[in-house]
Amino acid sequence: MEVYLDNSATTRCFDEVAQLMMKISCEDYGNPSSMHHKGVEAERYLRYARETLAKILKVNEKEIFFTSGGTESDNIAIVGTAMANHRTGRHLITTQIEHPAVIQTMKYLEAQGFRVTYLPVDKQGRIRLEDLQEAICKETILVSIMHTNNEIGTIEPIEEAGELIKRTNPATVFHVDAVQGFGKFRIYPSRMNIDLLSVSAHKIHGPKGVGFLYINDKIKINPIIYGGGQQKGMRSGTENVAGIAALARAAEIMYSNLDADMNRLYELRDMFIQGVSQIDNVKVNGCMGNESAAHIVSLSVSGVRSEVLLHALEDRGIYVSAGSACSSNKPQPSATLKAIGVEKDLLHSTIRFSFSVFTTEEEIRYTIQTLREIIPELRKYTRH
Amino acid sequence: MEVYLDNSATTRCFDEVAQLMMKISCEDYGNPSSMHHKGVEAERYLRYARETLAKILKVNEKEIFFTSGGTESDNIAIVGTAMANHRTGRHLITTQIEHPAVIQTMKYLEAQGFRVTYLPVDKQGRIRLEDLQEAICKETILVSIMHTNNEIGTIEPIEEAGELIKRTNPATVFHVDAVQGFGKFRIYPSRMNIDLLSVSAHKIHGPKGVGFLYINDKIKINPIIYGGGQQKGMRSGTENVAGIAALARAAEIMYSNLDADMNRLYELRDMFIQGVSQIDNVKVNGCMGNESAAHIVSLSVSGVRSEVLLHALEDRGIYVSAGSACSSNKPQPSATLKAIGVEKDLLHSTIRFSFSVFTTEEEIRYTIQTLREIIPELRKYTRH
Repeated sequence: MEVYLDNSATTRCFDEVAQLMMKISCEDYGNPSSMHHKGVEAERYLRYARETLAKILKVNEKEIFFTSGGTESDNIAIVGTAMANHRTGRHLITTQIEHPAVIQTMKYLEAQGFRVTYLPVDKQGRIRLEDLQEAICKETILVSIMHTNNEIGTIEPIEEAGELIKRTNPATVFHVDAVQGFGKFRIYPSRMNIDLLSVSAHKIHGPKGVGFLYINDKIKINPIIYGGGQQKGMRSGTENVAGIAALARAAEIMYSNLDADMNRLYELRDMFIQGVSQIDNVKVNGCMGNESAAHIVSLSVSGVRSEVLLHALEDRGIYVSAGSACSSNKPQPSATLKAIGVEKDLLHSTIRFSFSVFTTEEEIRYTIQTLREIIPELRKYTRH
Repeated sequence: MEVYLDNSATTRCFDEVAQLMMKISCEDYGNPSSMHHKGVEAERYLRYARETLAKILKVNEKEIFFTSGGTESDNIAIVGTAMANHRTGRHLITTQIEHPAVIQTMKYLEAQGFRVTYLPVDKQGRIRLEDLQEAICKETILVSIMHTNNEIGTIEPIEEAGELIKRTNPATVFHVDAVQGFGKFRIYPSRMNIDLLSVSAHKIHGPKGVGFLYINDKIKINPIIYGGGQQKGMRSGTENVAGIAALARAAEIMYSNLDADMNRLYELRDMFIQGVSQIDNVKVNGCMGNESAAHIVSLSVSGVRSEVLLHALEDRGIYVSAGSACSSNKPQPSATLKAIGVEKDLLHSTIRFSFSVFTTEEEIRYTIQTLREIIPELRKYTRH
């Protein structure tokens, strides 16, 4: 049995989505900038994708900008805002548990002379609104908070944060990295005071190498890539028509049955948590209930190193992740786990299970059963 | 009959290449950073792609970095080099006929306090080596020259320029935008003293949204996108595995039969030029012979506006381009045509025909015949 539970690293593309990509690549392959029929046809795919995504977010289609993925979206959001607003101030706020695409971009800006506040989080992985309130000052040009944490699944209080930011300093731009949240939750930028929202296709059964950034029409932001002036100059380069159409179709599928899919996933997750909680010294990190995403469970398994457990599970056909798997194989202790106060000797004994709409009850039962069998086995080999 | 002669704008994806993308997206969809089998499998596609492309260029596979396309490759090359070397000097050199991905990036650097020299070109569209020699100084950190011009097909004297640059100032980095040249010519960075080479997949029957940048191991360059540290930190973000494998496969196909394919295209091009030269007041821009690419012909048709001719051809099923088609529909007078001295009233009467390995003799004959019929017709309607 093959059980892919690494869906927060990446997902299997929907067949229908891959077929659409193939059709566009081989038949409707025009350049959207071409003036003839084939260009117009390609442009139509872009327009349809923009409309589809704008409708899901309840924003204007002019506010959707396609990128090469979540990392680029985060980079445009952060660097683009910093470069366009540095005369207003040079202070930025983010959290200690962001994805490297945010953290490393902030570090780059620090090297350029910007000041960055990294908000701590509580044991559940949630920021405290008081901390945010206290950090915002006249100089604050950007706050960047993730929607759903990629390692522990915690959902941040985005709506409350948005309200607080705009009340405290209306000029502060609010960026939300929704790479793990889009396609799983209803996110409405206007209502939630979100000015910038990063999304990636390959986390929602679309292709790798494409994503988008929602940009509130009213904010000041610079591009980071220059060229032919596509997408109103915000992101030059021939648009990845097939990938963009695929992204929109994947999003459409994800939102077509969202409530039922998510309820089912929450049930599976709770079943999984209940099942593994019966194993001695296994701890679920972050929060449970609806304050955490349905698709991510982080487990600390005392006495077993992450890689050992990962490979033992792999031998049984179960694919999971040791860290966030987005950071290029480097086995560094996770900043997120540290920030929520995971004990030192559990930092390297933590693995992530991440589900998708393809995940079945049978797979979850098999995974629980396997964990029950192998954890006591593996502990026997632990050096004391 | 449908005749697609806008291959310099974008090409039809090879069926085999699109199928490979689909297989990877739906079956081998792992994240290359994942430690389990599915990650290893994905990483293997990346390694194979790097090896394939490195072999074609005769460089080390560690020098291949995947990007979202030609525009991003050009941006990394130029901004990345400028940012890493600005302490050595703040002078850059390019030409007046570069693609906007180079020109606009240079303009961005000018706004950041860098000085840029834009080399003129002769009537054939070639830079003069004396001009280059004269422009290089101690402060020059980068020279960026395109391999093949996208509007008129002229091939620049890259090898001579490389030799001259390294002789004059060995510290100067040499970037070549080979978006129109790769897949059509043999390009060997080491022998040609090229430090950076930009390539795009969708110009060689690969997918849109992917490309690569060759980076000479010895030069100093910064990333422009930060995150999970993929590709040795040079380009963070989950790699577009399917797109990258597709790019490599497309390149492999292009180079598998290069000489025969190019000879055939040169014959078709010469047949085309001979055919259209018999029409009154039709002029081929740039050079002919082997100093120009086989796949691009720029024609100035006196007395007929580009868009009118473009749409008249479209009515007969022939798709061509008015400008370079890479610049997002804006009907500005082409900088390239101006630089080679095209007369003012011909600037808006110029169209580009661009061929590919799919182009047939029958299509060329049909296009010549159509031009012979419609040009005199269209001229009747010109206001005098």
